[in-house]
Amino acid sequence: MDTPPLYRQLAAHYLDAIRAGALQPGDKLPSLRSLMRQHNISLSTALQLCRNMESEGWVEARDRSGYFVKRPRRLAIAAMDEPATDVAPDPAQYVGIHSKVSDFVARRRQGEVRIDFSSARGAPELYPGEALRASMMRLLRQKPALLTTATPSRSLNPLREAAARRGLRVGMTLSPQEVLTTNGCIEALNLALRAVAQPGDTVAVESPTFYGLLQVLESLGMRALEIPTSPQTGLSIEALEMALGAYDNIKAVVTVPHLQNPLGSVMPDAHKERLVALCERHGIALIEDDTYSELLDTDTPPRAIKSWDRTGNVIHCASLHKILAPGMRLGWISAGRWQSRVEMLKFTQSRSNEELSQGAVGDYMNTGDYDRHLRRLRERLRQQREQTADAIAAHFPAGTRLNYPPGGLQLWVELPDRLSSMTVFDRALRERIFVAPGTLFSNSSRFDHYLRINCGWPITEPIQAALRRLGEIVGECAAVQRKAA
Amino acid sequence: MDTPPLYRQLAAHYLDAIRAGALQPGDKLPSLRSLMRQHNISLSTALQLCRNMESEGWVEARDRSGYFVKRPRRLAIAAMDEPATDVAPDPAQYVGIHSKVSDFVARRRQGEVRIDFSSARGAPELYPGEALRASMMRLLRQKPALLTTATPSRSLNPLREAAARRGLRVGMTLSPQEVLTTNGCIEALNLALRAVAQPGDTVAVESPTFYGLLQVLESLGMRALEIPTSPQTGLSIEALEMALGAYDNIKAVVTVPHLQNPLGSVMPDAHKERLVALCERHGIALIEDDTYSELLDTDTPPRAIKSWDRTGNVIHCASLHKILAPGMRLGWISAGRWQSRVEMLKFTQSRSNEELSQGAVGDYMNTGDYDRHLRRLRERLRQQREQTADAIAAHFPAGTRLNYPPGGLQLWVELPDRLSSMTVFDRALRERIFVAPGTLFSNSSRFDHYLRINCGWPITEPIQAALRRLGEIVGECAAVQRKAA
Ligand SMILES: Cc1ncc(COP(=O)(O)O)c(C=O)c1O
Ligand SMILES: Cc1ncc(COP(=O)(O)O)c(C=O)c1O
Repeated sequence: MDTPPLYRQLAAHYLDAIRAGALQPGDKLPSLRSLMRQHNISLSTALQLCRNMESEGWVEARDRSGYFVKRPRRLAIAAMDEPATDVAPDPAQYVGIHSKVSDFVARRRQGEVRIDFSSARGAPELYPGEALRASMMRLLRQKPALLTTATPSRSLNPLREAAARRGLRVGMTLSPQEVLTTNGCIEALNLALRAVAQPGDTVAVESPTFYGLLQVLESLGMRALEIPTSPQTGLSIEALEMALGAYDNIKAVVTVPHLQNPLGSVMPDAHKERLVALCERHGIALIEDDTYSELLDTDTPPRAIKSWDRTGNVIHCASLHKILAPGMRLGWISAGRWQSRVEMLKFTQSRSNEELSQGAVGDYMNTGDYDRHLRRLRERLRQQREQTADAIAAHFPAGTRLNYPPGGLQLWVELPDRLSSMTVFDRALRERIFVAPGTLFSNSSRFDHYLRINCGWPITEPIQAALRRLGEIVGECAAVQRKAA
Repeated sequence: MDTPPLYRQLAAHYLDAIRAGALQPGDKLPSLRSLMRQHNISLSTALQLCRNMESEGWVEARDRSGYFVKRPRRLAIAAMDEPATDVAPDPAQYVGIHSKVSDFVARRRQGEVRIDFSSARGAPELYPGEALRASMMRLLRQKPALLTTATPSRSLNPLREAAARRGLRVGMTLSPQEVLTTNGCIEALNLALRAVAQPGDTVAVESPTFYGLLQVLESLGMRALEIPTSPQTGLSIEALEMALGAYDNIKAVVTVPHLQNPLGSVMPDAHKERLVALCERHGIALIEDDTYSELLDTDTPPRAIKSWDRTGNVIHCASLHKILAPGMRLGWISAGRWQSRVEMLKFTQSRSNEELSQGAVGDYMNTGDYDRHLRRLRERLRQQREQTADAIAAHFPAGTRLNYPPGGLQLWVELPDRLSSMTVFDRALRERIFVAPGTLFSNSSRFDHYLRINCGWPITEPIQAALRRLGEIVGECAAVQRKAA
């Protein structure tokens, strides 16, 4: 991996100080002269350092007197309310999300999208494409018959080993045999749900939740029971407990404990522990979707829910799609007491995954490069999130709300005056800007005045301009709505 | 591709003459001297030619007088009876095959298998591993960001194009957009069945059929109605017609028209046409599993059932697993009027397949090398099947029956005296020889006295010895059974 230039290393150092509060908004950065002396750098490097911090919005130049720490704009934006958790949940419903989703996909296809804020994806350059490619070429050279030899089911490989080993870091003790590779987390979720529930059964999900999960439930003929979910702490355990009291036939709970999609919430460890106990007590399966954990901005990785599991009641699902290789379909599942049923379902559904991709990716994950990549990815995403949030704070009208998440690829934005996200979606699409309207994230209309904004791409000038324009569009739509009222 | 040595080319020439009947059993091959003169070859080449034909069992040396065409032993073995088709079928049943299959898998795992006749697979060296690998490396070099760029759903690629183009050869006019790549044929069958039927519904299948299909039905909670199937002409259209009259709730028929697994039967075109009309008339979906068509020994490829489809009622499923790349999970589906439902189910089940494998394989399929590979593969498999069938004829006891199929990877063997294939399986396993007992190929016990023998591996001395030993084991088991009776 390239080491960043000196001025960026120093910028990171000052940023840490700002984040830690050692440098507060209004404080002055050391002068150019003292920067040069303190770090033993040239004037041009000191200048680059200051200008870089300025261009990223951390400091501002006040003429002749130096650079001063700015208050990030995003701090000015109000946080969202917590959901009410003491009300009876909506009854469980068969999901009707496909038609909504197809409608969006079809609309997008009609025109060429210029700027896409709608997906939950990182830019290719955020991922170690070169190293993965080299790993794959190496494996192809080492094992010339790989593509023409049928994969024995149950064979071990570097990916299953890497996944098991990394599980240890988050408190899961799994053997590689207990980690089954899947075609992404979505296949893992399918297998988990098919293992524990039947068509007609009810599955408790977070509200809002990512529409991929709702689509899976719909396609399997299962009912979704939406449980209020905090933008801060995720799934409400109280609300779930109430629902379990009120409804029979709940067979499973699906939760994304870290950087929930779309909220970005992170479940505290105490909640995870209670959740495990609650599900066990009620005899319902707990399905943990771990897609985003590695994107959390923290030095100690968060404990997996499954680390509290003592009875095999937690099914852990994971993916490399957002954290390592968006062009590959690799995820895995550890299904506790449903392991052999899940193995059988995987075999009947798609057979074992190919050895090549598992070997190439697993080899990479078993090097120190993987952690270095993840650190760099988190840092880049943090910058992109900050810039996006700052732009939203700057350009969206008053009344817009935002919970700034501690990691991940996206921001969840509440529009002012309960403005319809569909109205905004339609207006933005006319200018070839694509956003994900909140209506996609629930079977109800509860989130119709939200947008999900992807921050996976480096914030270039066209993206800045699109965010500005989006803010104006929201403002215009809100004005029209106020007039009509 | 290597050109075979001269003596093998000449052997192929004489073999063709034997097959075409120009040289009959008992006829004399030209003398060494005339071979030398006729083909302008050395004595040693002429000798190699004769010895090669002798070792492959085509000719025998009678001392001093030359080489004479032998009657292939396999021609001595009796063919199987046709199934009765004028009896009411068994009622549709929920499938209970997993426990049988898991039992086998578990047993095999207990010891190290020495010779495996149980799978339906070709040896890696039968496939163009080097060319596929080169194609993949080329693509990795050309598109450095392939592994780190998310695959847009619906994007076209060389595999979808190749599949559509090759469909034309067998009478299907499909655009690449109508060919959806899947994780092998097994995923295609899952999608097809999920699209046209619900849990509890009945699906008509061939009897016997491959256990993979029975497992899919079981895992989807669907019922199988087994339709008598001819070892020669495949699914009995009369029997199906009777069943359609007798049972409601049949939602689909699944058929393998060419080289049915395990029978090796080939459905005549007239039957295909009637089948299409019958299914249409009854409003039930027709699912065509095209896994083995390319292995049929014929110069003109057989017409796909879907080529008669005028209303979108036929779903075509295919795979490269047996014909091109056993180490990859690549198949496809063209689902007629269920296409958009199948696309949705594919998206929710596993998302789009990776671009890399589709690109690499599609590029290869779009060259002339692909057809050359297929011709060579068919030729090699033909030899292996012939040698295996000859060994069975030589070593299995009288009363053994066999239908010699016109292509493919396997032989379906009827044991004498209705001998239990489980008894044979157990005995053979003790000597670390693994066979697939007939009981795996039906939900009934109708095929308990059959074995499926894989011919995918070059017939080496250990394989010859194992076939001999297997014949002895069958003889011993039959003797024990006769004594007990
Ligand atoms: C929470 C969550 N789970 C699962 C998935 C699907 O992941 P994969 O691409 O690995 O199938 C996504 C993708 O958007 C997601 O956001
Ligand atoms: C008739 C038939 N269909 C489908 C399959 C599964 O094929 P794939 O490996 O492409 O999923 C097999 C494999 O044994 C088969 O014999």
